[in-house]
Amino acid sequence: MATISRKAQQMPASAIRKLVPYADAAKSAGIKVYHLNVGAPDIKSPDCALDAVRNLNLHHVSYTNSAGLIELRRGMVGKYYKKVGIELDESEIIMCVAGSEAVNLAIQITCDEGDELLVVEPYYTNYNTMCFQNGVSLKAVPTDIRHNFDIPDASVFEKYISPKTKAILISNPCNPSGKLFTKEAVLALGEICKKHDLFLISDEVYREFCYTDEPHFSAMNIPGLEENVILVDSVSKRYNLCGARIGCIASHNKEVMKAAMKYAQARLCPPVFGQYAALGALDTPQSYFDETREEYIRRRNYAVERLNSMEGVFTPMPLGAFYTVAELPVDSSEAFCKWMLTDFRLDAQTTMTTPAASFYKTPGKGLNQVRIAYVLEVPELRKALDVFEAGLKAYPGRTI
Amino acid sequence: MATISRKAQQMPASAIRKLVPYADAAKSAGIKVYHLNVGAPDIKSPDCALDAVRNLNLHHVSYTNSAGLIELRRGMVGKYYKKVGIELDESEIIMCVAGSEAVNLAIQITCDEGDELLVVEPYYTNYNTMCFQNGVSLKAVPTDIRHNFDIPDASVFEKYISPKTKAILISNPCNPSGKLFTKEAVLALGEICKKHDLFLISDEVYREFCYTDEPHFSAMNIPGLEENVILVDSVSKRYNLCGARIGCIASHNKEVMKAAMKYAQARLCPPVFGQYAALGALDTPQSYFDETREEYIRRRNYAVERLNSMEGVFTPMPLGAFYTVAELPVDSSEAFCKWMLTDFRLDAQTTMTTPAASFYKTPGKGLNQVRIAYVLEVPELRKALDVFEAGLKAYPGRTI
Repeated sequence: MATISRKAQQMPASAIRKLVPYADAAKSAGIKVYHLNVGAPDIKSPDCALDAVRNLNLHHVSYTNSAGLIELRRGMVGKYYKKVGIELDESEIIMCVAGSEAVNLAIQITCDEGDELLVVEPYYTNYNTMCFQNGVSLKAVPTDIRHNFDIPDASVFEKYISPKTKAILISNPCNPSGKLFTKEAVLALGEICKKHDLFLISDEVYREFCYTDEPHFSAMNIPGLEENVILVDSVSKRYNLCGARIGCIASHNKEVMKAAMKYAQARLCPPVFGQYAALGALDTPQSYFDETREEYIRRRNYAVERLNSMEGVFTPMPLGAFYTVAELPVDSSEAFCKWMLTDFRLDAQTTMTTPAASFYKTPGKGLNQVRIAYVLEVPELRKALDVFEAGLKAYPGRTI
Repeated sequence: MATISRKAQQMPASAIRKLVPYADAAKSAGIKVYHLNVGAPDIKSPDCALDAVRNLNLHHVSYTNSAGLIELRRGMVGKYYKKVGIELDESEIIMCVAGSEAVNLAIQITCDEGDELLVVEPYYTNYNTMCFQNGVSLKAVPTDIRHNFDIPDASVFEKYISPKTKAILISNPCNPSGKLFTKEAVLALGEICKKHDLFLISDEVYREFCYTDEPHFSAMNIPGLEENVILVDSVSKRYNLCGARIGCIASHNKEVMKAAMKYAQARLCPPVFGQYAALGALDTPQSYFDETREEYIRRRNYAVERLNSMEGVFTPMPLGAFYTVAELPVDSSEAFCKWMLTDFRLDAQTTMTTPAASFYKTPGKGLNQVRIAYVLEVPELRKALDVFEAGLKAYPGRTI
């Protein structure tokens, strides 16, 4: 019998989805499972996005340009990016199959097999999967949950840079930590990239989910780093169009965009229905973003306060995205998350959360942490955290 | 300035789309360009597919299962594959971002960096691009346009197999040649795979476009090769939903499907609107396929007869897909295709065809061949080939 490639055998399975069979089994047994594990929120998509697809008058669904519909690229540049203070030419953006493809492209364009990509820990776990797929080595700069996941000073950060390092990849605001990197922090990273001539890949898919008074500072606006920055973006979270699978890669670096176009052509074009949804979404009124933001602030405030009120639990206050990482008084957060699904029930309810170990590269880190997505309305969130707290108290591997 | 990866620099640009700027320039100058270059047909998509998207009642567009909507996978297995005589369990199919992703997955699952993938020449050019992306070496078994692109006997074929060969990849019916591999030819390939324990990746996206009386014989039905066959499929051509970007990978080999799921999870899910279009398309009446087939037979008959009536032109009779490869009396088909766009006009019209060299690996092969997609109605096709013939006569690099 023919055997599959070593790479396919060794490819890491999604830690986030590994618990799905246990959740399915619980649901089959009639248990209500509160999903605090995935970033799939319940907020409505803007009508203008959904209507654009409903009212599409196509007779057949042809390929578009590999870079995406020109009216979409123009609209992204002229309507959306202009509004958020990012200046781009329409030749500097290529529509992708969501942020996932954009990150994958950025890795392939900056790193050869054997090269190193630097991330800040904790990081989005699929960064590691994509590096693995491309034979690129992901290296992580540690941060500390007790120090608000702050990026260390340049002198410490630079110790993780080797001659093989080709790029730094950040998610800002950050999935999984909810960390929002300040303008100063982004500028400091920019200085490191300048000094070592590294690419800076900036995944800003949560840009609209910032809970401070200062506007989000995009890496695209670091002065003097124009040729080194690659922007990764997506309509998935911004308009609650996760399933549309539309994102983009953008850069002022012509070589980067030329290479991105070669990869884009090899997969023909981004999904066309989703492109029309994204085109319609460009007319989303500001009130949509304002209301969504207020709703998430309510949810975040409730979740963070509630979590910190539980004995032995600690989570910093996230300033962006819709996740928080919490330290729990448990022997193993993976065992705890699984036990909640397989063993614990409160009035026929349980919770699903994500063990944080897969967001870390440093051995031993994150083993007692979980990621919690606050993607439920406060009344539901309250019920979910009631169950979570009861489970945490009853868990046999509790350490306090 | 940071430099992009060697791989991104060396990544081959799409030969098919390289001529696009010249076509655009001609169009800007008011010239009508007949597109015989791309497989983007003008046939209407089935109403049931388009209506499924128009009538979608979603409030927000969430991720689906990474393998795709369960009702779509069940429908594909129970309605479509059952009908065409391919027996699959719903656990043996994963929906993909079109056939492109499915081929890419199949390559990654079967071949490590440095391994060899064997194709029959001429082949779909993106097979080579995808191999390049994955560090896999594409090796080609030559065939002869004057011998109807027949696969050589096993004794010849086997000379191209090395210890590094992990899989054979065929497109059946074949893009670009329109070649339909008979049941006997597919069984013979199966024997080679058994003997050398190779995977057989069978790209059958043109399955519905067969112009013989015998039904299409799928590699999935080779007796005794169940563990080695990986099916690549797509709704793009079948229902004229190219832009929906929905395809699938299927195999009876559990290790293959387990690995495919890991890759699928890393990119979260296939496009959701397209999945609903594909779900709706499952209700396409047989009359749609019959009418489409009749229409293509008309187009093919006209195109092939007309091409062979031109002095010095030869093309075999294709029995599948909607392409044919033609030998032209020219010094270089690439120069000719470009010259048609930049220099030749007949009543302010010209044609765009694809130079065939990029469908070959063997040095020197295909240099005087083009691929012609007969994706226009006969009256338009007539006008297009009038222009093509006049251009061929006037071309300065003509060899007869």
